[in-house]
Amino acid sequence: MPDQTSRKASGTLRSDARENRERILVAAREAYALHGIDVPMAAIARRAKVGVATLYRRFPTRAALVSEAFAEQLAHCVGVLHEGLADPDPWRGFCSVVEDVCMMQATERGFTQAFLSQFPDHAEYAVERDRAEEGLALLIRRAKESGRLRPDFDLRDFTLLILANSGAIAGAGDDAPAASRRLVGYLLQSFRAEAAAPLPPPAPLGLDRMSS
Amino acid sequence: MPDQTSRKASGTLRSDARENRERILVAAREAYALHGIDVPMAAIARRAKVGVATLYRRFPTRAALVSEAFAEQLAHCVGVLHEGLADPDPWRGFCSVVEDVCMMQATERGFTQAFLSQFPDHAEYAVERDRAEEGLALLIRRAKESGRLRPDFDLRDFTLLILANSGAIAGAGDDAPAASRRLVGYLLQSFRAEAAAPLPPPAPLGLDRMSS
Repeated sequence: MPDQTSRKASGTLRSDARENRERILVAAREAYALHGIDVPMAAIARRAKVGVATLYRRFPTRAALVSEAFAEQLAHCVGVLHEGLADPDPWRGFCSVVEDVCMMQATERGFTQAFLSQFPDHAEYAVERDRAEEGLALLIRRAKESGRLRPDFDLRDFTLLILANSGAIAGAGDDAPAASRRLVGYLLQSFRAEAAAPLPPPAPLGLDRMSS
Repeated sequence: MPDQTSRKASGTLRSDARENRERILVAAREAYALHGIDVPMAAIARRAKVGVATLYRRFPTRAALVSEAFAEQLAHCVGVLHEGLADPDPWRGFCSVVEDVCMMQATERGFTQAFLSQFPDHAEYAVERDRAEEGLALLIRRAKESGRLRPDFDLRDFTLLILANSGAIAGAGDDAPAASRRLVGYLLQSFRAEAAAPLPPPAPLGLDRMSS
Protein backbone atom coordinates (compact mmCIF):
# COMPACT_ATOMS: atom_id res chain seq x y z
CA MET A 1 0.00 0.00 0.00
CA PRO A 2 1.47 3.42 -0.90
CA ASP A 3 2.28 5.77 1.97
CA GLN A 4 0.72 9.23 2.48
CA THR A 5 3.46 11.04 0.55
CA SER A 6 3.40 8.99 -2.61
CA ARG A 7 -0.41 8.96 -2.63
CA LYS A 8 -0.41 12.73 -2.37
CA ALA A 9 2.20 13.04 -5.14
CA SER A 10 0.25 10.78 -7.40
CA GLY A 11 -2.99 12.71 -6.66
CA THR A 12 -1.25 15.97 -7.62
CA LEU A 13 0.08 14.38 -10.74
CA ARG A 14 -3.33 13.18 -11.74
CA SER A 15 -4.81 16.60 -11.11
CA ASP A 16 -1.98 18.21 -13.16
CA ALA A 17 -2.69 15.79 -15.95
CA ARG A 18 -6.41 16.62 -15.85
CA GLU A 19 -5.56 20.31 -15.94
CA ASN A 20 -3.23 19.84 -18.92
CA ARG A 21 -5.86 17.83 -20.70
CA GLU A 22 -8.50 20.50 -20.14
CA ARG A 23 -6.07 23.23 -21.26
CA ILE A 24 -5.31 21.30 -24.44
CA LEU A 25 -9.00 20.79 -25.22
CA VAL A 26 -9.79 24.49 -24.70
CA ALA A 27 -6.83 25.49 -26.90
CA ALA A 28 -7.86 22.99 -29.56
CA ARG A 29 -11.45 24.28 -29.68
CA GLU A 30 -10.17 27.86 -30.03
CA ALA A 31 -7.66 26.95 -32.73
CA TYR A 32 -10.20 24.86 -34.70
CA ALA A 33 -12.71 27.69 -34.53
CA LEU A 34 -10.16 30.14 -35.89
CA HIS A 35 -8.27 28.02 -38.40
CA GLY A 36 -10.20 24.79 -38.97
CA ILE A 37 -9.17 21.34 -37.80
CA ASP A 38 -6.10 21.17 -40.03
CA VAL A 39 -4.22 23.48 -37.70
CA PRO A 40 -0.85 21.85 -36.75
CA MET A 41 -0.68 19.92 -33.47
CA ALA A 42 2.37 22.02 -32.51
CA ALA A 43 0.29 25.21 -32.77
CA ILE A 44 -2.25 23.73 -30.37
CA ALA A 45 0.52 22.75 -27.95
CA ARG A 46 1.88 26.33 -28.05
CA ARG A 47 -1.59 27.78 -27.47
CA ALA A 48 -2.16 25.38 -24.54
CA LYS A 49 1.35 26.14 -23.18
CA VAL A 50 2.24 22.43 -23.02
CA GLY A 51 5.05 20.58 -24.75
CA VAL A 52 4.37 18.80 -28.03
CA ALA A 53 5.33 15.50 -26.34
CA THR A 54 2.70 16.06 -23.62
CA LEU A 55 0.09 16.82 -26.27
CA TYR A 56 0.86 13.62 -28.20
CA ARG A 57 0.93 11.58 -24.98
CA ARG A 58 -2.66 12.68 -24.24
CA PHE A 59 -3.89 12.65 -27.84
CA PRO A 60 -1.84 10.38 -30.10
CA THR A 61 -3.66 11.47 -33.30
CA ARG A 62 -5.35 14.56 -34.62
CA ALA A 63 -8.60 12.61 -34.94
CA ALA A 64 -8.51 11.71 -31.24
CA LEU A 65 -8.05 15.36 -30.31
CA VAL A 66 -10.82 16.61 -32.59
CA SER A 67 -13.23 13.96 -31.30
CA GLU A 68 -12.50 14.80 -27.68
CA ALA A 69 -12.61 18.56 -28.26
CA PHE A 70 -16.10 18.39 -29.73
CA ALA A 71 -17.46 15.28 -28.04
CA GLU A 72 -20.01 17.21 -25.98
CA GLN A 73 -21.34 19.24 -28.90
CA LEU A 74 -21.50 16.23 -31.21
CA ALA A 75 -23.40 14.30 -28.56
CA HIS A 76 -25.79 17.23 -28.22
CA CYS A 77 -26.47 17.22 -31.99
CA VAL A 78 -27.11 13.50 -31.99
CA GLY A 79 -29.40 13.91 -28.97
CA VAL A 80 -31.38 16.66 -30.69
CA LEU A 81 -31.96 14.44 -33.70
CA HIS A 82 -33.06 11.51 -31.53
CA GLU A 83 -35.48 13.68 -29.57
CA GLY A 84 -36.93 15.00 -32.80
CA LEU A 85 -37.42 11.47 -34.09
CA ALA A 86 -39.05 10.44 -30.80
CA ASP A 87 -41.63 13.26 -30.92
CA PRO A 88 -45.09 11.77 -31.61
CA ASP A 89 -45.82 14.90 -33.74
CA PRO A 90 -43.36 14.61 -36.65
CA TRP A 91 -43.78 18.27 -37.72
CA ARG A 92 -43.05 19.48 -34.18
CA GLY A 93 -40.07 17.10 -34.12
CA PHE A 94 -38.81 18.49 -37.42
CA CYS A 95 -39.20 22.10 -36.23
CA SER A 96 -37.40 21.48 -32.97
CA VAL A 97 -34.44 19.83 -34.72
CA VAL A 98 -34.17 22.81 -37.07
CA GLU A 99 -34.48 25.29 -34.19
CA ASP A 100 -32.05 23.51 -31.88
CA VAL A 101 -29.37 22.90 -34.50
CA CYS A 102 -29.59 26.50 -35.72
CA MET A 103 -29.46 27.91 -32.18
CA MET A 104 -26.42 25.76 -31.48
CA GLN A 105 -24.84 27.23 -34.61
CA ALA A 106 -25.54 30.71 -33.25
CA THR A 107 -24.30 30.13 -29.72
CA GLU A 108 -21.40 27.69 -30.12
CA ARG A 109 -19.74 29.25 -33.09
CA GLY A 110 -16.39 27.55 -32.69
CA PHE A 111 -17.88 24.11 -32.97
CA THR A 112 -20.12 24.89 -35.89
CA GLN A 113 -17.40 26.66 -37.82
CA ALA A 114 -15.08 23.72 -37.37
CA PHE A 115 -17.88 21.29 -38.08
CA LEU A 116 -19.12 23.10 -41.17
CA SER A 117 -15.76 23.88 -42.62
CA GLN A 118 -13.74 20.78 -41.92
CA PHE A 119 -15.38 17.71 -40.47
CA PRO A 120 -17.03 16.52 -43.66
CA ASP A 121 -13.70 16.22 -45.45
CA HIS A 122 -12.40 13.81 -42.86
CA ALA A 123 -13.06 10.14 -43.39
CA GLU A 124 -13.46 9.49 -39.66
CA TYR A 125 -16.63 11.58 -39.70
CA ALA A 126 -18.23 9.86 -42.68
CA VAL A 127 -20.02 7.41 -40.37
CA GLU A 128 -21.46 10.18 -38.15
CA ARG A 129 -22.49 12.13 -41.23
CA ASP A 130 -24.19 9.16 -42.88
CA ARG A 131 -26.06 8.38 -39.67
CA ALA A 132 -27.18 12.01 -39.30
CA GLU A 133 -28.30 12.01 -42.92
CA GLU A 134 -30.39 8.87 -42.42
CA GLY A 135 -32.01 10.28 -39.28
CA LEU A 136 -32.81 13.55 -41.01
CA ALA A 137 -34.23 11.80 -44.05
CA LEU A 138 -36.54 9.78 -41.77
CA LEU A 139 -37.62 12.90 -39.87
CA ILE A 140 -38.39 14.67 -43.15
CA ARG A 141 -40.35 11.73 -44.55
CA ARG A 142 -42.51 11.49 -41.44
CA ALA A 143 -43.14 15.25 -41.35
CA LYS A 144 -44.27 15.09 -44.98
CA GLU A 145 -46.49 12.09 -44.31
CA SER A 146 -48.14 14.03 -41.47
CA GLY A 147 -49.17 16.60 -44.10
CA ARG A 148 -47.47 19.52 -42.36
CA LEU A 149 -44.10 19.66 -44.21
CA ARG A 150 -44.39 20.67 -47.86
CA PRO A 151 -43.92 17.70 -50.21
CA ASP A 152 -41.16 19.40 -52.24
CA PHE A 153 -38.93 19.94 -49.20
CA ASP A 154 -35.63 18.26 -49.97
CA LEU A 155 -32.91 16.91 -47.68
CA ARG A 156 -30.57 19.31 -49.48
CA ASP A 157 -32.72 22.18 -48.22
CA PHE A 158 -31.53 21.30 -44.73
CA THR A 159 -27.95 22.01 -45.84
CA LEU A 160 -29.16 25.21 -47.48
CA LEU A 161 -30.77 26.26 -44.19
CA ILE A 162 -27.57 25.59 -42.24
CA LEU A 163 -25.53 27.60 -44.74
CA ALA A 164 -28.01 30.49 -44.73
CA ASN A 165 -28.03 30.46 -40.94
CA SER A 166 -24.24 30.54 -40.83
CA GLY A 167 -24.31 33.66 -43.05
CA ALA A 168 -26.81 35.37 -40.77
CA ILE A 169 -24.75 34.45 -37.72
CA ALA A 170 -21.45 35.57 -39.22
CA GLY A 171 -22.94 38.95 -40.13
CA ALA A 172 -24.92 39.65 -36.98
CA GLY A 173 -22.12 39.75 -34.40
CA ASP A 174 -23.55 39.80 -30.87
CA ASP A 175 -27.07 39.69 -32.32
CA ALA A 176 -26.43 36.27 -33.87
CA PRO A 177 -29.02 34.43 -31.73
CA ALA A 178 -31.74 37.00 -32.55
CA ALA A 179 -30.85 37.01 -36.25
CA SER A 180 -30.84 33.22 -36.36
CA ARG A 181 -34.21 32.95 -34.57
CA ARG A 182 -35.84 35.40 -36.97
CA LEU A 183 -34.39 33.67 -40.07
CA VAL A 184 -35.41 30.23 -38.82
CA GLY A 185 -38.88 31.63 -38.05
CA TYR A 186 -39.27 32.80 -41.65
CA LEU A 187 -37.90 29.60 -43.14
CA LEU A 188 -40.03 27.27 -41.03
CA GLN A 189 -43.11 29.18 -42.21
CA SER A 190 -42.07 28.70 -45.82
CA PHE A 191 -41.55 24.98 -45.18
CA ARG A 192 -45.20 24.47 -44.13
CA ALA A 193 -47.32 22.55 -46.59
CA GLU A 194 -50.06 25.18 -46.46
CA ALA A 195 -47.62 27.93 -47.56
CA ALA A 196 -46.31 25.95 -50.50
CA ALA A 197 -46.14 27.64 -53.89
CA PRO A 198 -43.83 26.40 -56.68
CA LEU A 199 -40.09 26.83 -56.01
CA PRO A 200 -36.89 26.78 -58.06
CA PRO A 201 -35.33 23.28 -57.93
CA PRO A 202 -33.18 22.33 -54.92
CA ALA A 203 -29.51 23.21 -55.18
CA PRO A 204 -27.33 20.08 -55.36
CA LEU A 205 -26.09 20.36 -51.78
CA GLY A 206 -25.43 17.16 -49.84
CA LEU A 207 -24.57 17.26 -46.15
CA ASP A 208 -21.00 16.82 -47.38
CA ARG A 209 -21.33 20.21 -49.05
CA MET A 210 -21.58 21.95 -45.73
CA SER A 211 -17.82 22.13 -46.21
CA SER A 212 -16.88 25.09 -48.33
CA MET B 1 -0.68 71.16 -85.88
CA PRO B 2 1.29 68.06 -84.77
CA ASP B 3 2.91 65.97 -87.49
CA GLN B 4 2.10 62.29 -88.19
CA THR B 5 4.83 60.98 -85.87
CA SER B 6 3.90 62.92 -82.76
CA ARG B 7 0.19 62.19 -83.29
CA LYS B 8 0.94 58.50 -83.51
CA ALA B 9 3.09 58.65 -80.36
CA SER B 10 0.38 60.44 -78.44
CA GLY B 11 -2.23 57.94 -79.65
CA THR B 12 -0.06 55.09 -78.38
CA LEU B 13 0.42 56.85 -75.10
CA ARG B 14 -3.28 57.31 -74.63
CA SER B 15 -3.93 53.65 -75.42
CA ASP B 16 -1.19 52.65 -72.94
CA ALA B 17 -2.82 54.81 -70.31
CA ARG B 18 -6.20 53.21 -70.97
CA GLU B 19 -4.62 49.77 -70.69
CA ASN B 20 -2.91 50.68 -67.41
CA ARG B 21 -6.15 52.07 -66.07
CA GLU B 22 -8.03 48.90 -66.98
CA ARG B 23 -5.29 46.72 -65.47
CA ILE B 24 -5.41 48.71 -62.24
CA LEU B 25 -9.20 48.39 -62.02
CA VAL B 26 -9.09 44.62 -62.60
CA ALA B 27 -6.33 44.25 -59.97
CA ALA B 28 -8.26 46.43 -57.51
CA ARG B 29 -11.46 44.37 -57.90
CA GLU B 30 -9.50 41.15 -57.34
CA ALA B 31 -7.68 42.53 -54.31
CA TYR B 32 -10.86 43.98 -52.78
CA ALA B 33 -12.66 40.70 -53.26
CA LEU B 34 -9.85 38.83 -51.51
CA HIS B 35 -8.86 41.27 -48.79
CA GLY B 36 -11.49 43.99 -48.55
CA ILE B 37 -11.07 47.59 -49.60
CA ASP B 38 -8.46 48.39 -46.97
CA VAL B 39 -5.80 46.57 -48.97
CA PRO B 40 -2.77 48.91 -49.43
CA MET B 41 -2.55 50.88 -52.67
CA ALA B 42 0.99 49.51 -53.13
CA ALA B 43 -0.36 45.94 -53.14
CA ILE B 44 -2.78 46.87 -55.90
CA ALA B 45 0.03 48.49 -57.91
CA ARG B 46 2.09 45.29 -57.58
CA ARG B 47 -0.86 43.14 -58.62
CA ALA B 48 -1.50 45.41 -61.63
CA LYS B 49 2.23 45.44 -62.46
CA VAL B 50 2.33 49.25 -62.54
CA GLY B 51 4.39 51.65 -60.45
CA VAL B 52 2.87 53.18 -57.33
CA ALA B 53 3.34 56.64 -58.91
CA THR B 54 1.31 55.57 -61.95
CA LEU B 55 -1.43 54.22 -59.70
CA TYR B 56 -1.67 57.49 -57.75
CA ARG B 57 -1.58 59.55 -60.98
CA ARG B 58 -4.70 57.71 -62.20
CA PHE B 59 -6.42 57.40 -58.79
CA PRO B 60 -5.28 60.03 -56.30
CA THR B 61 -7.25 58.51 -53.40
CA ARG B 62 -8.38 55.09 -52.28
CA ALA B 63 -11.99 56.28 -52.44
CA ALA B 64 -11.57 57.25 -56.10
CA LEU B 65 -10.20 53.81 -56.92
CA VAL B 66 -12.93 51.94 -55.03
CA SER B 67 -15.65 54.02 -56.70
CA GLU B 68 -14.25 53.41 -60.18
CA ALA B 69 -13.61 49.71 -59.56
CA PHE B 70 -17.24 49.08 -58.60
CA ALA B 71 -18.98 51.87 -60.51
CA GLU B 72 -20.74 49.47 -62.86
CA GLN B 73 -22.00 47.15 -60.12
CA LEU B 74 -23.11 50.01 -57.90
CA ALA B 75 -24.98 51.55 -60.81
CA HIS B 76 -26.64 48.19 -61.44
CA CYS B 77 -27.82 48.00 -57.80
CA VAL B 78 -29.23 51.51 -57.93
CA GLY B 79 -30.92 50.69 -61.24
CA VAL B 80 -32.52 47.56 -59.77
CA LEU B 81 -33.95 49.57 -56.90
CA HIS B 82 -35.31 52.27 -59.25
CA GLU B 83 -36.94 49.67 -61.49
CA GLY B 84 -38.52 48.02 -58.47
CA LEU B 85 -39.90 51.37 -57.31
CA ALA B 86 -41.22 52.09 -60.81
CA ASP B 87 -43.16 48.81 -61.02
CA PRO B 88 -46.91 49.53 -60.85
CA ASP B 89 -47.29 46.31 -58.81
CA PRO B 90 -45.37 47.03 -55.56
CA TRP B 91 -45.17 43.37 -54.51
CA ARG B 92 -43.73 42.39 -57.90
CA GLY B 93 -41.34 45.34 -57.57
CA PHE B 94 -40.28 44.17 -54.12
CA CYS B 95 -39.75 40.57 -55.29
CA SER B 96 -37.69 41.61 -58.30
CA VAL B 97 -35.39 43.79 -56.17
CA VAL B 98 -34.85 40.88 -53.77
CA GLU B 99 -34.26 38.45 -56.63
CA ASP B 100 -31.93 40.73 -58.62
CA VAL B 101 -29.82 41.82 -55.66
CA CYS B 102 -29.47 38.23 -54.42
CA MET B 103 -28.58 36.96 -57.90
CA MET B 104 -25.96 39.68 -58.20
CA GLN B 105 -24.57 38.50 -54.86
CA ALA B 106 -24.36 34.98 -56.27
CA THR B 107 -22.77 35.85 -59.59
CA GLU B 108 -20.50 38.83 -58.83
CA ARG B 109 -18.98 37.61 -55.63
CA GLY B 110 -16.02 39.96 -55.60
CA PHE B 111 -18.20 43.00 -55.58
CA THR B 112 -20.61 41.74 -52.98
CA GLN B 113 -17.86 40.55 -50.69
CA ALA B 114 -16.16 43.93 -50.85
CA PHE B 115 -19.50 45.68 -50.52
CA LEU B 116 -20.72 43.61 -47.62
CA SER B 117 -17.48 43.53 -45.73
CA GLN B 118 -16.11 47.00 -46.18
CA PHE B 119 -18.17 49.67 -47.84
CA PRO B 120 -20.43 50.43 -44.90
CA ASP B 121 -17.49 51.40 -42.70
CA HIS B 122 -16.39 54.06 -45.11
CA ALA B 123 -17.87 57.51 -44.72
CA GLU B 124 -17.88 58.11 -48.48
CA TYR B 125 -20.53 55.42 -48.87
CA ALA B 126 -22.84 56.70 -46.16
CA VAL B 127 -24.75 58.78 -48.72
CA GLU B 128 -25.27 55.83 -51.07
CA ARG B 129 -26.31 53.66 -48.17
CA ASP B 130 -28.79 56.18 -46.80
CA ARG B 131 -30.29 56.62 -50.25
CA ALA B 132 -30.59 52.86 -50.74
CA GLU B 133 -32.18 52.55 -47.31
CA GLU B 134 -34.78 55.22 -48.12
CA GLY B 135 -35.61 53.56 -51.44
CA LEU B 136 -35.97 50.16 -49.80
CA ALA B 137 -38.13 51.55 -47.01
CA LEU B 138 -40.45 53.09 -49.61
CA LEU B 139 -40.59 49.85 -51.60
CA ILE B 140 -41.44 47.90 -48.45
CA ARG B 141 -44.13 50.38 -47.36
CA ARG B 142 -45.83 50.21 -50.76
CA ALA B 143 -45.68 46.41 -50.89
CA LYS B 144 -47.30 46.26 -47.45
CA GLU B 145 -49.99 48.76 -48.47
CA SER B 146 -50.78 46.58 -51.48
CA GLY B 147 -51.64 43.82 -48.97
CA ARG B 148 -49.14 41.32 -50.41
CA LEU B 149 -46.11 41.83 -48.12
CA ARG B 150 -46.70 40.75 -44.52
CA PRO B 151 -47.16 43.71 -42.16
CA ASP B 152 -44.42 42.60 -39.76
CA PHE B 153 -41.73 42.55 -42.46
CA ASP B 154 -38.98 44.86 -41.27
CA LEU B 155 -36.30 46.77 -43.16
CA ARG B 156 -33.79 44.86 -41.03
CA ASP B 157 -35.12 41.64 -42.53
CA PHE B 158 -33.66 42.80 -45.83
CA THR B 159 -30.22 42.81 -44.23
CA LEU B 160 -30.95 39.41 -42.73
CA LEU B 161 -31.86 38.11 -46.20
CA ILE B 162 -28.61 39.44 -47.71
CA LEU B 163 -26.57 37.84 -44.92
CA ALA B 164 -28.39 34.51 -45.23
CA ASN B 165 -27.89 34.60 -48.98
CA SER B 166 -24.18 35.29 -48.57
CA GLY B 167 -23.93 32.20 -46.35
CA ALA B 168 -25.69 30.04 -48.93
CA ILE B 169 -23.45 31.41 -51.68
CA ALA B 170 -20.24 30.97 -49.70
CA GLY B 171 -21.12 27.34 -48.97
CA ALA B 172 -22.46 26.30 -52.34
CA GLY B 173 -19.37 26.78 -54.52
CA ASP B 174 -20.26 26.49 -58.20
CA ASP B 175 -23.89 25.88 -57.26
CA ALA B 176 -24.18 29.33 -55.68
CA PRO B 177 -26.77 30.63 -58.19
CA ALA B 178 -29.00 27.55 -57.72
CA ALA B 179 -28.65 27.67 -53.93
CA SER B 180 -29.42 31.38 -53.88
CA ARG B 181 -32.49 30.98 -56.12
CA ARG B 182 -33.90 28.22 -53.93
CA LEU B 183 -33.29 30.16 -50.69
CA VAL B 184 -34.81 33.33 -52.12
CA GLY B 185 -37.76 31.28 -53.35
CA TYR B 186 -38.41 30.01 -49.83
CA LEU B 187 -37.94 33.39 -48.18
CA LEU B 188 -40.19 35.27 -50.61
CA GLN B 189 -42.93 32.75 -49.83
CA SER B 190 -42.52 33.39 -46.13
CA PHE B 191 -42.67 37.16 -46.75
CA ARG B 192 -46.18 36.92 -48.27
CA ALA B 193 -48.96 38.33 -46.15
CA GLU B 194 -51.07 35.19 -46.66
CA ALA B 195 -48.29 32.98 -45.20
CA ALA B 196 -47.84 35.13 -42.11
CA ALA B 197 -47.80 33.46 -38.71
CA PRO B 198 -46.20 35.11 -35.64
CA LEU B 199 -42.40 35.48 -35.79
CA PRO B 200 -39.60 36.15 -33.30
CA PRO B 201 -38.77 39.89 -33.25
CA PRO B 202 -36.48 41.30 -35.95
CA ALA B 203 -32.76 41.17 -35.18
CA PRO B 204 -31.31 44.67 -34.75
CA LEU B 205 -29.54 44.70 -38.10
CA GLY B 206 -29.27 47.99 -39.98
CA LEU B 207 -27.91 48.11 -43.52
CA ASP B 208 -24.72 49.25 -41.81
CA ARG B 209 -24.60 45.82 -40.17
CA MET B 210 -24.01 44.14 -43.49
CA SER B 211 -20.40 44.73 -42.48
CA SER B 212 -19.15 42.05 -40.18
